[in-house]
This record gives sequence, C-alpha cells and structure tokens, in this order.
Amino acid sequence: MMKIIYILFLFTLLSSSHASVNDFCVADTKASDTPTGYPCKPVSQITSDDFVFHGFVAGNTNSSNPVALTPAFVTQFPALNGLGVSAARLDLAQGGTVPMHTHPGATELVIILEGEITAGFLTPTTAYSKTLKSGDLIVFPQGMLHFLVNSGQGKASAFLTFSSANPGAQLLDNLLFSNNLPSSLVAQTTFLDLAQVKKLKARFGGSG
Amino acid sequence: MMKIIYILFLFTLLSSSHASVNDFCVADTKASDTPTGYPCKPVSQITSDDFVFHGFVAGNTNSSNPVALTPAFVTQFPALNGLGVSAARLDLAQGGTVPMHTHPGATELVIILEGEITAGFLTPTTAYSKTLKSGDLIVFPQGMLHFLVNSGQGKASAFLTFSSANPGAQLLDNLLFSNNLPSSLVAQTTFLDLAQVKKLKARFGGSG
Amino acid sequence: MMKIIYILFLFTLLSSSHASVNDFCVADTKASDTPTGYPCKPVSQITSDDFVFHGFVAGNTNSSNPVALTPAFVTQFPALNGLGVSAARLDLAQGGTVPMHTHPGATELVIILEGEITAGFLTPTTAYSKTLKSGDLIVFPQGMLHFLVNSGQGKASAFLTFSSANPGAQLLDNLLFSNNLPSSLVAQTTFLDLAQVKKLKARFGGSG
Amino acid sequence: MMKIIYILFLFTLLSSSHASVNDFCVADTKASDTPTGYPCKPVSQITSDDFVFHGFVAGNTNSSNPVALTPAFVTQFPALNGLGVSAARLDLAQGGTVPMHTHPGATELVIILEGEITAGFLTPTTAYSKTLKSGDLIVFPQGMLHFLVNSGQGKASAFLTFSSANPGAQLLDNLLFSNNLPSSLVAQTTFLDLAQVKKLKARFGGSG
Amino acid sequence: MMKIIYILFLFTLLSSSHASVNDFCVADTKASDTPTGYPCKPVSQITSDDFVFHGFVAGNTNSSNPVALTPAFVTQFPALNGLGVSAARLDLAQGGTVPMHTHPGATELVIILEGEITAGFLTPTTAYSKTLKSGDLIVFPQGMLHFLVNSGQGKASAFLTFSSANPGAQLLDNLLFSNNLPSSLVAQTTFLDLAQVKKLKARFGGSG
Amino acid sequence: MMKIIYILFLFTLLSSSHASVNDFCVADTKASDTPTGYPCKPVSQITSDDFVFHGFVAGNTNSSNPVALTPAFVTQFPALNGLGVSAARLDLAQGGTVPMHTHPGATELVIILEGEITAGFLTPTTAYSKTLKSGDLIVFPQGMLHFLVNSGQGKASAFLTFSSANPGAQLLDNLLFSNNLPSSLVAQTTFLDLAQVKKLKARFGGSG
Repeated sequence: MMKIIYILFLFTLLSSSHASVNDFCVADTKASDTPTGYPCKPVSQITSDDFVFHGFVAGNTNSSNPVALTPAFVTQFPALNGLGVSAARLDLAQGGTVPMHTHPGATELVIILEGEITAGFLTPTTAYSKTLKSGDLIVFPQGMLHFLVNSGQGKASAFLTFSSANPGAQLLDNLLFSNNLPSSLVAQTTFLDLAQVKKLKARFGGSG
Repeated sequence: MMKIIYILFLFTLLSSSHASVNDFCVADTKASDTPTGYPCKPVSQITSDDFVFHGFVAGNTNSSNPVALTPAFVTQFPALNGLGVSAARLDLAQGGTVPMHTHPGATELVIILEGEITAGFLTPTTAYSKTLKSGDLIVFPQGMLHFLVNSGQGKASAFLTFSSANPGAQLLDNLLFSNNLPSSLVAQTTFLDLAQVKKLKARFGGSG
Repeated sequence: MMKIIYILFLFTLLSSSHASVNDFCVADTKASDTPTGYPCKPVSQITSDDFVFHGFVAGNTNSSNPVALTPAFVTQFPALNGLGVSAARLDLAQGGTVPMHTHPGATELVIILEGEITAGFLTPTTAYSKTLKSGDLIVFPQGMLHFLVNSGQGKASAFLTFSSANPGAQLLDNLLFSNNLPSSLVAQTTFLDLAQVKKLKARFGGSG
Repeated sequence: MMKIIYILFLFTLLSSSHASVNDFCVADTKASDTPTGYPCKPVSQITSDDFVFHGFVAGNTNSSNPVALTPAFVTQFPALNGLGVSAARLDLAQGGTVPMHTHPGATELVIILEGEITAGFLTPTTAYSKTLKSGDLIVFPQGMLHFLVNSGQGKASAFLTFSSANPGAQLLDNLLFSNNLPSSLVAQTTFLDLAQVKKLKARFGGSG
Repeated sequence: MMKIIYILFLFTLLSSSHASVNDFCVADTKASDTPTGYPCKPVSQITSDDFVFHGFVAGNTNSSNPVALTPAFVTQFPALNGLGVSAARLDLAQGGTVPMHTHPGATELVIILEGEITAGFLTPTTAYSKTLKSGDLIVFPQGMLHFLVNSGQGKASAFLTFSSANPGAQLLDNLLFSNNLPSSLVAQTTFLDLAQVKKLKARFGGSG
Repeated sequence: MMKIIYILFLFTLLSSSHASVNDFCVADTKASDTPTGYPCKPVSQITSDDFVFHGFVAGNTNSSNPVALTPAFVTQFPALNGLGVSAARLDLAQGGTVPMHTHPGATELVIILEGEITAGFLTPTTAYSKTLKSGDLIVFPQGMLHFLVNSGQGKASAFLTFSSANPGAQLLDNLLFSNNLPSSLVAQTTFLDLAQVKKLKARFGGSG
C-alpha cells in the first residue's frame, strides 16, 4: 500500500509538471503567435470544455447565400494549438460553389455528407477531379489549388479536415482582384484580358 | 503568343519533374516503408481515382457487434502518404463502446454525427470528458489514452480524423491481455488483481 | 595581422547576434510555454552552470519506497529546452516496479546500470520484453506502453534517456484510477470488473 | 603518438559509418522518391564533383523568349537531397514576366542582380509588392501566389533561392487552362467569363 | 452578384484571421526568441517594406580588410522568421579568405558571382573541395566545417544562401582561441603545439 | 463475450497493419538509407531481441589506448531507426582525452559515471566548460565544438546520449589533417603555422 502511494505521488509530480508543456498546449490567443503556434494557457485554467467545440452544424444557405462554411480552426477552437489538425463544415445550396483556392500550409481531406459534389485539384499538367457523393473522400495535397461545386440536385454538404490547426483559405479571386495592384499588372501576370481584370476588380472590391 | 508558349513549356517542364517529389507522393504500399512513409508510385501511374476513397459509410452494427470502424488510413487510401492526415468512420449500436486506447503518433479530432457519445481522454491528474451530440467536436491530443461510448438511446456515429496518415489504434485490453507475458507480471505492473488479469487474458486471447 | 582582427570582429558580430537564437535556447521557465518549448533566457545571463545539472545520483529506496526517480527534464534542467533530449535516473529496491506507463511524445532508451531488470513494451499483437542486466540497453518507441521491474536479487538501477526535453510520464493506474469518472464508465471502457475498478480507485485517489 | 593513432582510428571508424547517413545524402534519383527525399547514393561513389553545379549562368532571352529560368533543384543537383535548399537563375528581357505562380512547399528569397523588377505576393486582403533593383531582396512566404516583372529598361536578372530541395513551380495559367476540365466549370470556380476561359484554354493547351 | 459578395466576405474573414498565424510571421525581434523563432508582429503593422531588404551590395574590401560579409538574416530582415531561408553577400579582395567555420543549424548553398574561389567542406575521411568560378554553385551540408578562399587574380564575390533564417557563423579560430580556457587544455584537445595555441590566443583575443 | 471478440479482432487488424509503419521501424541497414532513416524490416521478422543491445560495457583502456568508445547508434542497434535517440559509453584512462569534435545533427547529453571529467563546448564569444564528477550532467547543443578530458586521478567514464539515431563524430584533427588538401591551404584557412599543419598532417595520415 505504501508502495502504491509512493508511486502515485512520484508520477503525479512528474506528470503534472509535464502536462503544461507537451501533452497539450491550449492556445492563449491573446498572446502573440509564433511560427509554430500560440503560447499555452496555464493548465490550471483548462477544463473539459476547452477540448470541445459546439455548433459544428449546417450553416444557412439559400439562393443568394449558397455557401456556408463553419470553421473550427485554432482561432475558434484554441485546444487545437500545436496539434496539427482542424476541421470545417461546408454547406452548399444547389449550384453552390467553393471557388478555386489554396491552403498554403495544410492538406485537406474532404468527407462528403450528402448531395453530389464535383471537386478536384489542379497541377500544371493534370486536373485531378471527380464527382463525389455521400461516403466518398477526396484529398487535396498541401498548397494545391482546388475547388468544390454542388453539381447535383438539392443541397450538398461535407466535412473538411486539415493537417494544420490553422489552414486559412486563400480564394483565388480575392488574391487577384481584391487588391490595389494596377489592373494592367494583374493582366500582364495572369494573361487575362484587361477588361476581365477590371470587371472582377469591381466585383471583388479591388482598385487600380 | 510566342511568349505564352515559351512560358508554358518552361513551367510544365519544371512542374512535371517536381510533381513526382513534393506535391504529392501516393504510396507504393508494396515497397518497404520508411520512418516518414512509403516510397512514391510513379506520377505516370496516378489518376484522379488515386485521390478518392469510396465506402466511407456506416458499418453494420447490432447487439453482438456493436462497434464498426471504417478506416481510411494510408494502407486503405495510399494517396494520404506523407500528407499528415487520415480519417475513419465510427458506428456504435446502443451501448456500443470504443474501449480505452491510444494513437502513439496522432492527435484525433472527433466529429459527432448522430446520437449521444460520451468521450474523453485521461491525464494523470484529470479526466477531460464530456457527453456530446451531433454538431460537437472533441479533440484527443497525441498519445493520450481515450474512449468513446454510445451513452444515448439508439445508434450513434462519428467521424474520426487524425494528424497522421497512419494513426493505428492501440487498444488497452489488447496491449495488456493478448500477449504471453506472465499474468503475475501483468498484475505486478498494473496493480490489477491476478484473478482479474487471468480472466481478461482468457477473454482477449493471451497466455501466460 | 589586420586581417585577423578584421575577421575576428566580423564573425564575432555575426555569431553573438546568432547565439541568442539557434545555437541554444536556455528556457525561461517563468514565461509561457509554446508548442515547441519555452522562450529563451537572454544570452547575457547564461553561464557554464546553465549547461550542467548536479544531483543525478541514486535516490533513496527501501522496502516501503522501492522506486526512486531523479528526472533531469527541461523543468529541472532548462538548458535542454528545444534540444530534443533529456534523462532520468531510476533506482529500484528489490522487487521494485515501474508500472505500465507511456511517454506520449518521447522514445525512451534505457541503460541498465546494476542488478537485473525485466522490461518491455506492448503492442496489440506482441509484447516485446527481455530480462536485462548491466551493459544492456532497451528502447521503447514513442508512445508505447512499457514497464520495468527489478526481477533480481538486491538493488537495480538504470539511466533513462528520452528523445524529448520533456517526456513526462503517464502511469496507467493514475490515468485510470485517480480521476472522478464514474467507476462504471471505467469498467465499461476497460473490461475490468467493477469491483476491481472501485478497489483501485480507492487506492489511487480517484472518486466516482 | 600511440594515442593519436588510436583516436584517429576510433573516430574514423565512427565517422565513416556515419557519413553515409546524416551528414549528407546525395540523391540516387533513379530510385523511388519518398515523402522526404530520394534514397542516398553510396558514399563510396561520391566525389567533390557531386557537391558542385555548373552552368548557373544567364539564359538566352529575346523578344520572343523573354524569360529564361535555370534551375538547380534536386533533379539537376542531387547533392541538395534532404538539405532543404535550392536555387534558380532568372533572366528577363525587357518586359519579361514571370506570371502568377506558387511553390506549394517552399519559401522563395529573391536576390535582384540587375535591372528593375517589380515583384510581390498576394494575400486575400493585401498585395505586398515593390519595385526592386540590384542589391534588393524580397521574400515570398511558402505557398503564396507571387509574380515578377521586368518593369525597367533593358534586361533584368535575379537569383531565386528556396527553402526546399525541390520547390517546383505551379504557374496559375497552366493550372487553370492547360487541363481538360470543362470550360464552364473553370468559369464557375474562378468567376472568369466563359469566353475568357476558352480563349486562354486555347492558348495554354487545354481542352474542354 | 450577391453570391460573389458573400464568398468574398466569407473568405476574407477566414483569411485575415489566418494571415496572422501561418502564412507569415514577421519577427518581433524585441520579444524573447523561442526554439523555433520570434513571436510575430501584428499583421496590422506589416507593409510591403517588411518583405524587402535593401543594401545587399558589395562590401568594401582592400588589402587590410580583405573580407566583407553583408548578412540578411532574421536579425537584419525580420520577415524571414520561421521561413527557413536567409542569405549573405560575400566580397573577397585578392587573397581574401573565409576561414574554417560551421553553421550548426544550416546548410549553405554558395553562388559564385565573380572571380575564382576555392571552397570546400571537410569530413573525417575526405575533403570535398573545388576551384569555382562565376556560374558555379557549391553546397556545404548542415554543420560541416568549410572554407572559401579567393584563389584567383583580382576580386571575387559570392552569394551565400542558407536553409535557416539565422545560420550564424562559428569561426574555428574564434572558437578555439578567443576564449579563456587554459592554453594547455586547448593544446591537449586539439593536438596543436602549446606555442601555437598561445600565439593564436594572443592574436584572437583569448586568455589563459 | 461476442462484443469483446469483435473488438479484439477489429483493433488487432488495425494495429497490425499499423505496426509496420509508425510505431517503430527497425532499420533494414542493407537497404539504401534516406534523409530520414533506413527502410523498415518487415514486422514479421522482428523479435524482442531487436529492441535490446548487449555489450554496452567499459571498453579496454590503458596508457597507450587511453580512450574507448562503445557506440550504440543505428548501425549497431537498428531498432533506433527513426526514433531520434542513441547512446555511447566512454571510458578514459587517466589523462585520456576526447579531442575537439562536433556532431552536426545531434545534441549530446553526457552522464558522468566515475572519475573527474572536464568538459565543455565552444562558442565564438565564450567557452562553456566545467569540471564534472559522478552524478553530473552536461549538455552540448547540436553542432557545437566540444571536448572531454579525464582531469582527475585514475579512470573516468561517462554515458553519452544523443538526440539522433546516428550522431556520428567529426574529430577536428581528422577534419583538418587527415585529408589531401594542400598544407598551405589548411594553414591559410586556420591561421595555423604551416609547420604545425605539416606536423599534424604527418600524424593524422593526411597528405599535401
């Protein structure tokens, strides 16, 4: 009996000092970020609730707002800090489209929930693309330009999971057309017609 | 026009040599594995189908087989090789239990689909545990001992996503009771009663 | 001569700015930890003493306290911060046992110093276990459940080295029986008898 | 004297076995790649020439071929395997443009050699762009969409260095317009006009 | 139109929260460093100028100061923080020498600009060394002892690029002869004659 | 009972496929190495003996062979492959010296066993050095030049542990004096006198 108490004490001591370091590191998102994640909240302030995220449910979509994305990234779910994983829920009304975009630091693994989704990623020589339905997965390797389209009848939805706690999302149209670079420079570096660039700059809030 | 063709040629050349290396590396699972994953299949043999996995659907459960797990790890889905992500679908009949286990090299992020699941992970000082329902997420940091139980009425199901292409699963009872270590040694190193060890060794196929 | 002074100045300048960053990063353990370690103490405050740890000696053991562990982890030895290595000294009185435990983020390499130690780690299909003596090494890969027992006559001791500056230690009994989870839930998720769970909860300080 | 010979023998033994593993790993580019690089050529076949690359010189440019890129990536320079660095030389005739592209797995650090180059990278909210001249550096963080344009009079040239042995290059126009995805799908997922998509598909060798 | 605005808003929201974390992390060099780099400056304070470095030009050399090194490491160019790359410009008057040194955490890739440079790195069994000219590259794998000498007529210059944002430079003579270790200890551990050690200690500012 | 068998089967299946990949990867040292380690031996060929190393005992030392080093690196102990840890035993006769050397890819943590050892590592501005005895640890951060000397009466011994499965050892004298570089070049790049270089080239087997 003595032995057990001794062991208990011994390992509890070790483990509690340890717990604040490597086992998990719930983000203190008010502190400055670092290249590998946020500083940790003190373990004494952590409860079971920190490891749970609520509201990972279907977003509202309709014909004018056909895309709803519900992210659970480190900003929304600080327990993911340093753990190399996150998720989002995607809901698409009929015809809804997630336009071309990249995640510079994350692979994306998509789980189709309902409906029909056509999705793929692009390489310079080949577009890897498929029409998917419930029970299908597709993977977009890190940094690759990819898209998802509700290509069926009715709603479609999917879970998106990522190999990073903070995958972000760089929508191609925002990249190209929300900025104040001269339209002529955008045209020159994309081979798009200048009129096309100006038209999309107007739509996406860019100037120049 | 000349310019465009030139550019096209230039970058296609670069990118195609590149594609076989870093953009993705679909596993040649017949070759020997390495500490960081399998050798790559030649890009020339890769098609869109490599990046898609079918059959990520509800497994059959009933009162005698209350747990069904459908993995999409690198063994089943070779495109995940080197990409640091994988998934599994979990279906639990009423009362179904995923017993205590660890993934030594992966964090697990759970998405509850339906039903009520009580889940948590254990640290030496605290058990972080919650009862969850559809729309909830819970995260089990890498290497932590954790469990999931269908604690509600009727079926429950969840998607499990991982920060590794090959998270495996080390069920505590298999670890302790499927081997041929002497029962007395298992008792000594777990503080379990010898009779308890022998009883579970008999159930889990161990000897000794 | 001029050249040498010039070179001396040039490289000293570079190196001293550099030293505060990558060559080493002695932990400021009062600052918040991050997923990859503590912020660094200023180089100006570092002396030779920071890189040395004293007291890595045999702990006191006897029949009521048969296990003594002397850790030199980042908490005790801040110079290890960010360097991916640490150590502990283990002393075992006759019959002394280090019960089943894991280090979620570290491989352990054991150097047997004296006596006879039976040690091993468990996988779902096989227990890899050996009886070892002075001059033997055994390795427990990262995250694997393992144990060490003084299986000989008289004392036994070993050095434990780790592939992490902060390996911690998750004793299985503390994980399972020191918490406040309902005993019935622990029984359900471990296949242990309820009476066994309650007995060990009482011993290891758990409730529920 | 004896001592020196002993030491010499001792360390030479250790070091030569070691040299084949971690100090360097010149790629055997005929073997299958892995997620972290090629298998190593035997050390016995390595000479000084393996660590040197010739021909990192100005490529020929003229008004019809205004861009010349001379890569020294792992394919061309196998000694870079596993070392996390590579380079390329870029020459631009007047008006020459490196169109929008990404390197999914590499940061790019550009050293301007001569002429005037306007370069930048895009984020969803801001374009970070500058006009640069000899003696300027610009960095494009990993995975970001970026461009370089000879915006001055006469030739311009730069060295491009990368944080990967195999950064590749994914030209946006090749991604979007060299494939066989239906033009309507490309239009839908880029917000480009269908006519624009078809025009560029014709130029960049795509179909659909 | 509604759809585009919706998408625009959706992704801008995600991306701007994201931009502060993974896309880049410009160093706040006044904050404490960590093992993986400095905390990030707020994105709101970042402009295009942060990603540009000026003054990467030929340093002044002459017969008394034959070596000029212009570093662009994270200290001088904070945008490199966390990006795994940096550079320096090296200018050597005739006969100028960069003495034996190491970068403990970085591979170095050298681009010869002008003149003739003899350079190489040392292993216990082989020196890999070549005489190089404009248009040649040489790579020194991480941590290897290496040197560069202007072995030609007239000036020589090179760009040095590194696989780390902060490669530093550990000049062998500074390591051995700028310290206050007893000269006899230095002699004992290097096999150098005591007189040689004392002579160089005097030159390089050491004592003892 | 049915349930347990089901679970047992389910997890054994998962875990055994997994075991060949991530849990451990015992080196097939006859296959070609990669930048991150050797390919794995098949799990079916692995036994407990693979995880144990024998003969980690005092080497023979005497006045003519004062240094004995017994390595347990991946070459000698293939189970360490991919696990980021290794060890060696060092025995020093009175006056025995481990001359200046580096491990380019490993931090070294030294455990003093007996005798008195003076040890330290060098930075361009400071030598961090101490005289140590049994029960002391000293750490040499990755890539730093360091030494150990038996500075006491009688024998001394230590365990050396490393943050790499293959730390190697680059003895400074072998680096500088075992090669065929011209002695004048070695003198020029080290500031050593030419006579000193020639003397040590003769001793350490170099030519030139």
